[in-house]
Amino acid sequence: MPRYALGLDYGTNSCRSLLVDLDTGEELGSTVFPYPSGTLGILTDPADPNVARQNPQDYLDGLVAIVRGALEQAREKRPGFSPADVIGIGVDTTGSTPIPVDASGTPLGLLPAFRDNPNAQVWLWKDHTAHAEAEAITAAAAAQRPHFLAKCGGIYSSEWWWSKIWRCAKVDPVVFAAAHSWVEHCDWLPAVLTGTTAPGVMARSICSAGHKAMFSEEWGGLPDKEFLASLDPALADLRDRLYDRAVTADTRAGGLTAEWADRLGLVEGTAVAVGAFDAHMGAVGAGVKKGTLTKILGTSTCDITVWPASEPLADVPGLCGIVPGSVLPGYHGIEAGQSAVGDIFLWFVHHLVPDRYGATADEKFQAMEAELARQKPGESGLLALDWNNGNRTILVDVRLTGLILGQTLHTQAHEIYRALIEATAFGALTIIRRMEEYGIAVEEVVNTGGLAVKNATLMQIYADILGRPLKVAASDQTCALGAALFGAAASGQIALADAQTAVCHTRERIYRPIPENQAVYARLYTLYRTLHDAFGTSGWTGRLDQVMKDLITIRQEQRRS
Amino acid sequence: MPRYALGLDYGTNSCRSLLVDLDTGEELGSTVFPYPSGTLGILTDPADPNVARQNPQDYLDGLVAIVRGALEQAREKRPGFSPADVIGIGVDTTGSTPIPVDASGTPLGLLPAFRDNPNAQVWLWKDHTAHAEAEAITAAAAAQRPHFLAKCGGIYSSEWWWSKIWRCAKVDPVVFAAAHSWVEHCDWLPAVLTGTTAPGVMARSICSAGHKAMFSEEWGGLPDKEFLASLDPALADLRDRLYDRAVTADTRAGGLTAEWADRLGLVEGTAVAVGAFDAHMGAVGAGVKKGTLTKILGTSTCDITVWPASEPLADVPGLCGIVPGSVLPGYHGIEAGQSAVGDIFLWFVHHLVPDRYGATADEKFQAMEAELARQKPGESGLLALDWNNGNRTILVDVRLTGLILGQTLHTQAHEIYRALIEATAFGALTIIRRMEEYGIAVEEVVNTGGLAVKNATLMQIYADILGRPLKVAASDQTCALGAALFGAAASGQIALADAQTAVCHTRERIYRPIPENQAVYARLYTLYRTLHDAFGTSGWTGRLDQVMKDLITIRQEQRRS
Repeated sequence: MPRYALGLDYGTNSCRSLLVDLDTGEELGSTVFPYPSGTLGILTDPADPNVARQNPQDYLDGLVAIVRGALEQAREKRPGFSPADVIGIGVDTTGSTPIPVDASGTPLGLLPAFRDNPNAQVWLWKDHTAHAEAEAITAAAAAQRPHFLAKCGGIYSSEWWWSKIWRCAKVDPVVFAAAHSWVEHCDWLPAVLTGTTAPGVMARSICSAGHKAMFSEEWGGLPDKEFLASLDPALADLRDRLYDRAVTADTRAGGLTAEWADRLGLVEGTAVAVGAFDAHMGAVGAGVKKGTLTKILGTSTCDITVWPASEPLADVPGLCGIVPGSVLPGYHGIEAGQSAVGDIFLWFVHHLVPDRYGATADEKFQAMEAELARQKPGESGLLALDWNNGNRTILVDVRLTGLILGQTLHTQAHEIYRALIEATAFGALTIIRRMEEYGIAVEEVVNTGGLAVKNATLMQIYADILGRPLKVAASDQTCALGAALFGAAASGQIALADAQTAVCHTRERIYRPIPENQAVYARLYTLYRTLHDAFGTSGWTGRLDQVMKDLITIRQEQRRS
Repeated sequence: MPRYALGLDYGTNSCRSLLVDLDTGEELGSTVFPYPSGTLGILTDPADPNVARQNPQDYLDGLVAIVRGALEQAREKRPGFSPADVIGIGVDTTGSTPIPVDASGTPLGLLPAFRDNPNAQVWLWKDHTAHAEAEAITAAAAAQRPHFLAKCGGIYSSEWWWSKIWRCAKVDPVVFAAAHSWVEHCDWLPAVLTGTTAPGVMARSICSAGHKAMFSEEWGGLPDKEFLASLDPALADLRDRLYDRAVTADTRAGGLTAEWADRLGLVEGTAVAVGAFDAHMGAVGAGVKKGTLTKILGTSTCDITVWPASEPLADVPGLCGIVPGSVLPGYHGIEAGQSAVGDIFLWFVHHLVPDRYGATADEKFQAMEAELARQKPGESGLLALDWNNGNRTILVDVRLTGLILGQTLHTQAHEIYRALIEATAFGALTIIRRMEEYGIAVEEVVNTGGLAVKNATLMQIYADILGRPLKVAASDQTCALGAALFGAAASGQIALADAQTAVCHTRERIYRPIPENQAVYARLYTLYRTLHDAFGTSGWTGRLDQVMKDLITIRQEQRRS
C-alpha cells in the first residue's frame, strides 16, 4: 500500500507543490505558480524601496494550480496513483509575513473596500518600512524586558510581526481598526484548507510565533499587555484577539474541508499539518540534525541547525532566533540568515551587466560564471559587503547598504559578480563563526536552493571560504519536501524522523575546500571583517588605510602566481 | 597684416592642432589625429593594469596630419591665408611622459632593435608601474632632502620622471643602458621641429622639469648626484647626460627646420616655443590669472591657478606642484588634479551599463544624463570615492582604488553614474579647500574640456558641490590655444599677456549653485570626507557606523521633499 504526502511551499515570487512517495522518496509531481500581482509577485512603491507587499488572492489561485498540477503528474507517472493515498498535507511560507484579517479570518486585502490599499495586503517578510518601529521595540524591550531580546539576537527586526503591525497602526489607522486580528501566512493557509480561519480557532505555529512574535513559554506566550501598552495601547488591545498557544508543525491543524477537497481533487478529511516557515521545513527536507547546518541559498538565505533541547545552550548575540520546536520537535531550532544573496546577483545582472555577456539574465550569469571560473581568489582586487538588503545576522540591522571597493579603470562586470558571490560567502562564514563561538558545532553544511544546484563555481567559492566540505541536498525542493514530511507526521501514520531518514539524501558531488584558495580567502576575510565591523558596529575603532593596499598586494601576488 | 599662431596639443588618446587669428581670436583650422597604436593609443599589459605606454611614431604621424589639416581648413575659410603669417608654433603634451632616447635624441622605440619592447616606448603619464620606486624616492627624500618633497606636495609620485626612469633601470637594464638620455614628450617635439633633439642642445621646459623632475633653481637644478646615487648609481650617472637649465614656454626653442617646414607646409625658420604640459598651457588658453582656477575636465583633470612670484606662498601639503614660471612667466604656477574623472565615467559606461540605455557609449551617457537630471542630490543614497586610478591630489597615492556604497536591491546604473560624477566633484572640492587653507584664493572657476562643454548636468552638480559659479572657456581647445599663444610669444612679435587678453573668453552660460542642493551636498561632502580620510590617510581615527544610516536618512528626506 503506497503512502504519499503533499508539500506546499510558498516562496517570495511563486508557490510550488511536491508530491512524494514516503517509502522510496520518489518525487511524483511538482508544479510552480508564479504570483501574478505586482513585480514578480511583489507589490512595491517607487517612492519607498522598503515597501514589499503581496496580494493574498495570489496564494489561493496558486493553491488550486499547484495541487491539481502535481496530482495530474502523479497520475501520468504512476497510473495506479490515488489521491486517497495522500496521507497528509504540509505548508511552508515566507515569514514573518503577517496578514490583517477580519473576524472570519478573511484577509482585508480580499475585501472590495480594501483591495487597492497596500497596507491591507500581506506584509511580505522583506518589507522594511517598519525600521523605526523595530528600533523602538528594541529600545523598549532592552529597558523593560531584556529577556525578550535575548531570544532574538538582541535586536528586534523591522521584518518581524510586531514591527509591521505597529507600523500599520501608525500609518493606516483605518486598516488597523478594520483588522479584527492578524495572522502569519503560514498559519492562514492550513486554516483555509481545514476551515479553521476564525482567530481563536486557528492553530498557530511555534516556528513563526517563537521567532517573530516574541512568543515563549518562559514568559507565558506573547509579550504581556503592559509591555505592549508601553509601545501602543492598540497593540495591547490586539493581544486579546491573537493567541495563547503555539504548536510544532507535526501537529494536525485539522482535516481538509469538503469544499477544498473538491477544488483540489483530494479526499475530504486528509490531515493538514500546522504550517511553518519555508527555511525551517526546508532544513528538515535537507536532513538537518545536530552538527549539520542546512543552508538554503535562494534570493535570501536561511542557515538552520538544531541542538538537543536537553543540552545547555546560551543565548547567541545577533542570531535571529533560537526557539524550542521550531524546526524539529525535541530540539532547539537555531535560525540565522542573510537578507539578500541571490537577490544581490539578480540586482547586479539586471541593472549593471552589459549585453555583451548575453541577451538574458541567464545568459549573462552563464557567461560571467565561465569568465570568473578562470580567475583566482583575490585576482580582481575587489572586496564587497553583502548588505544591499541590510544584514539579518549577526548585525540585525536593515539600515545598512551595499559596498564595493577595489575598482580600477579595468574592473569588469564578471569580476564584480565574483566579489558579490565572495561577499555573500564571507557573510555566511561570519554566521558560522558566531555559532561556533557559542558552542554550536557545525561539522557539515548541506546546501539547497537554486544556487546550490546550478552554480558549481559559486559552490566551490563557498567551500573555499567556509573551509568545510559542502554537500547539496538531493531534492531540488527541500522546503516543499519538508512540508510534505510534516504533513505525513500530522497524519499520525509515520514518525517524522523515520520519514526524514527514508526520503532525505545528498548528491554524490561534494565541494571540498582547495587549500591554496583557503589561504587567500583567509586574508580577504580579515579585510571583509574589518569593513563589516567598521560600517556595521558602533564599538569599532581601528584604521582602514591598509585595506585598499592589502587588496592590491594580494591582487599582485595572485596575478603573478 | 594678419598674424596667426599654431598650437599643437598632444593628449592621452589623440593629438590635435589649432590655428588661431591672434587679433580676433578666430579659430581658422583644427584637426584631430587619434593615435593608431594599442587600445585608444595606449599600449597596455593584460597582466598588469599599471602599464600605460605609447608609440613615439604615433606622435610624428600625427604631427603631419594635424598641421596640414589645419592649414587646409584655414585656406578654405580665408582664401588669402598664407603660412608665412603663422608667426609661431607652440606644443603641449601630457606629462610626466618620459622617453628613452639615443645619443641623437631618437626615441629607442623608433629603432628596429627595440620596436617591440614596451619599456623602450614612451612611458605615458598614467603608467603606474613605478609605485615602489616612487615610495623609495619619497622615503629617501624625506630622510635626506626634505626640501625636494616640500615642492611636490610631500610625496613623489609613480607618475613622475625619476620613478619611471628608475623603474626602467630595474626591470629592463638593456633598455636603460641603451638610453643615452631621457626626454619629456613636451621637450622632444619642439626639438624635433627645430632640429635640436641632441641631448645637451635640446631646450628643457621649466614646467616639466619643475613639476616632475624635482628641478629647482633653489638647489641648483636637478637633484644632486649624491642623492641620486643613494637611490641608484645609474641615476647619478644619467644626471650628467640630462640638463642644467630649464626655461619658460615663452622661450624660443628654435626655428622650424627646412625639412619639417616642407613636410608640414609651413615656412622655414618659423618660431617654435619651448613646450609645456597640456594642463598648464590649457590654463593659459582658458585665461588663468590670480584668483581664477582653471579646471580641465577630461579623462583626468588638472586644476591650475597662479600666484604672483612677488607675493609670499607657503608649501601646500598634497599639492603636486608649485613651480615658478610653469604656467605664466612671473607667477608661481600651482598645479593640482584628479587622476581619473572622465576615465571613471568611460570605465563605468563600457563595463557596467546595460544596453537598454543605448547601443553606444554616447547613447548610454545621454540616456543616463536624462535620467539623473530628474534626480535630487542624495536621492539615490549612494556615495562613491573617485579613486579608480588612485588619488593625485591631496593624498598623492596611486595605491588607492574606487569605492561605491549605499547600494540597495533597486539601485540603477544611472544612479551610480551620478554618484561617480558627485565623487569627482567632491574630489575637486577637496583640492580647492586645500588651496584656500594655504591662502590661495579661488574666486572663480573656468572650466574646459569635453565634459565642461557637453555635460550640463555634470556642470550643475559641480556648481552645487563646489559652491561657486562655474564658467566655461569659449574655446573648445584651450590647450591647443594656450600652445598657440606661447608660439606667438616665442616669436617676439607679441606679448603673452596681450595675446591672452585678445583671444581668451568665456561662454555666456554660467552655472550657479542652487542653494537647496548646496545644503544637501554639504552633508554628503562630510560623509565623503570621512571615507576619504578613513581609507586614504594613516592618521584617521573615528567611526563609520553612521555613514550608511546618514545616507539613508538623506535619501528618505530627499524622496519625500
